Amino acid sequence: MTDYFTLSVDTMGSETKIKDIVKGLNQSLLRNIKYKFILYGDQEAIEREIKKYKRLMDHVEIFHCNDFISMNDKPSDILKTKKFSSMYLAIKSVKENTSDAILSFGNTGALMTYSMLEIKTMNEIKRPSIASIWPNMKGESIVLDLGANTKLDSRYLIDNAVLGSNLASILFKIENPSIGILNVGTEDIKGNDEIRNASDKLKKLSNKLSLNYHGFVEGNDISQGKTNVVVTDGFTGNIALKTAEGTAKLFQSHLRDAFNSSLSSRIGYFLSSIAMRAVKDRLDPRVHNCGIFMGLNSLVVKCHGESESKGVSYASDIIYSLLENKVNEKIKSYLKEMHNNLEE
Amino acid sequence: MTDYFTLSVDTMGSETKIKDIVKGLNQSLLRNIKYKFILYGDQEAIEREIKKYKRLMDHVEIFHCNDFISMNDKPSDILKTKKFSSMYLAIKSVKENTSDAILSFGNTGALMTYSMLEIKTMNEIKRPSIASIWPNMKGESIVLDLGANTKLDSRYLIDNAVLGSNLASILFKIENPSIGILNVGTEDIKGNDEIRNASDKLKKLSNKLSLNYHGFVEGNDISQGKTNVVVTDGFTGNIALKTAEGTAKLFQSHLRDAFNSSLSSRIGYFLSSIAMRAVKDRLDPRVHNCGIFMGLNSLVVKCHGESESKGVSYASDIIYSLLENKVNEKIKSYLKEMHNNLEE
Repeated sequence: MTDYFTLSVDTMGSETKIKDIVKGLNQSLLRNIKYKFILYGDQEAIEREIKKYKRLMDHVEIFHCNDFISMNDKPSDILKTKKFSSMYLAIKSVKENTSDAILSFGNTGALMTYSMLEIKTMNEIKRPSIASIWPNMKGESIVLDLGANTKLDSRYLIDNAVLGSNLASILFKIENPSIGILNVGTEDIKGNDEIRNASDKLKKLSNKLSLNYHGFVEGNDISQGKTNVVVTDGFTGNIALKTAEGTAKLFQSHLRDAFNSSLSSRIGYFLSSIAMRAVKDRLDPRVHNCGIFMGLNSLVVKCHGESESKGVSYASDIIYSLLENKVNEKIKSYLKEMHNNLEE
Repeated sequence: MTDYFTLSVDTMGSETKIKDIVKGLNQSLLRNIKYKFILYGDQEAIEREIKKYKRLMDHVEIFHCNDFISMNDKPSDILKTKKFSSMYLAIKSVKENTSDAILSFGNTGALMTYSMLEIKTMNEIKRPSIASIWPNMKGESIVLDLGANTKLDSRYLIDNAVLGSNLASILFKIENPSIGILNVGTEDIKGNDEIRNASDKLKKLSNKLSLNYHGFVEGNDISQGKTNVVVTDGFTGNIALKTAEGTAKLFQSHLRDAFNSSLSSRIGYFLSSIAMRAVKDRLDPRVHNCGIFMGLNSLVVKCHGESESKGVSYASDIIYSLLENKVNEKIKSYLKEMHNNLEE
């Protein structure tokens, strides 16, 4: 084992430019000097960009690929073909311990399929989960699952609570992050059997283990930052995420129209543009649109298909922080302890 | 039968001021001259406000009430007591045909419980549904169910499609509004059995009846205005609605901070404040926060507990338009035709 963390980066199959990927990785390297990268993609194009960053050159290996998974490839189609695609080879590097984690901007379904088949879920976890970092009034929170597993089952909700809690404690540097289960009200009688069952079990676990279960939270509590972690099934989570994205876009679009509607508004916009940019940065989906696949034996992170360098460096920083803090080891030992407790 | 439409208004049990209720009803009366109102609440307080509006005086009857349902009363608690509450008496006026519809700003759970017990659902409908008008990029759409019925069942989804379609055609004055089922993706294989089953049946019905089923839509498609009607179960709908509200609030809060962050931004804000107000109006939850209870034998509309006069007049206009266009008769005849078709 080296002192370095190695990240495999799939540079193909999305609208994210190699220029942005390389620039973002370089920014992240400046903050995380023990990083090494293996870039899967067009060698020539990658080399052209890397030359711009002197320090980065010593930390990068390139694995040339001709083939890639496109956004339109169906998970079911990629299994027999595409064994030489940049995504598959990146996944394989983790499976074979050449690398510690993967970052991709490509087809989410394909990435999840490959991850489940090659990297596999931890023994204690039946299905992986996609976690994301949401901005809120107080800072940020972890929301999961955002679409990996659309089946509602109390066991998955409990697993998500553990996965999210470990993620939040590392990323937000807090002990015992508070956990809420997303529901249509906060009273104990709200929701359905699976949710109430998960809530009861988490209450019991809170007494025995260092798990800080708050109770039910509602949709608006995500943005309020009521809890550090919001747990839900992949169906509800996916719709909540996309509804929030749509609402933000609607707001921005109306705002743009409003500012263009008169001369004084345009002057107003100009005068307040620095402040406006700060708002955009704080709620920027290009920064916050990372899906962290949790519950697998290695870390897999999927970023937005049109990421810019800032989003790339943000994702790369997250992965470094999770590797450095041994997130998966912590989760595994936690799950073991939890299942012993649930069986008692 | 008179030429007038009579609306029973429950003026108690919320933060909505009688001043705003009366002002809003007066505004609506100016647009809908065949309106009559029965106001349930504190006679003296109501009379004081009504005196301000000469024309309104001839169109209002006051039913004095001492008792009301509070926001904290549980639906299970109100059934034996509170038979003289403003909300219950307003519901009873519809049951006894003194009135055509109800508008309330109070406890949603209590209003739904009373409605189901006293007004009852249509024969063809098993459970009522709460519909709401969402602003989107192209105008507005109907989303339902927003929390009346949290059970996912293909039959309820189909009922919601019919209820929403009739609502949209009247409120937006369009023939055959397009209908989407909210899902985690647009491909046929996405989602779960209940959703796919509902989608298959709606496709068949689209061929036989004047139902314009588009297919699956995603969370961001609500704000995009991809379809005129978005159908979902009450669990998902409630979380989507509250997540959208939370996101809008987060956006507004960051924007306020940004505008206060420097002198030039404050000047900028001042110069663009008229435009900003237009944005606020277009996305104003006080205007859009009406829940239309659908599938009952009479119309019941619940508005936000802190409505202002504009929200009141908006809700009153909606009810008038639905009564004038005989929404429930249309729905009943449609449902009859539909169930005949489904049984074939």
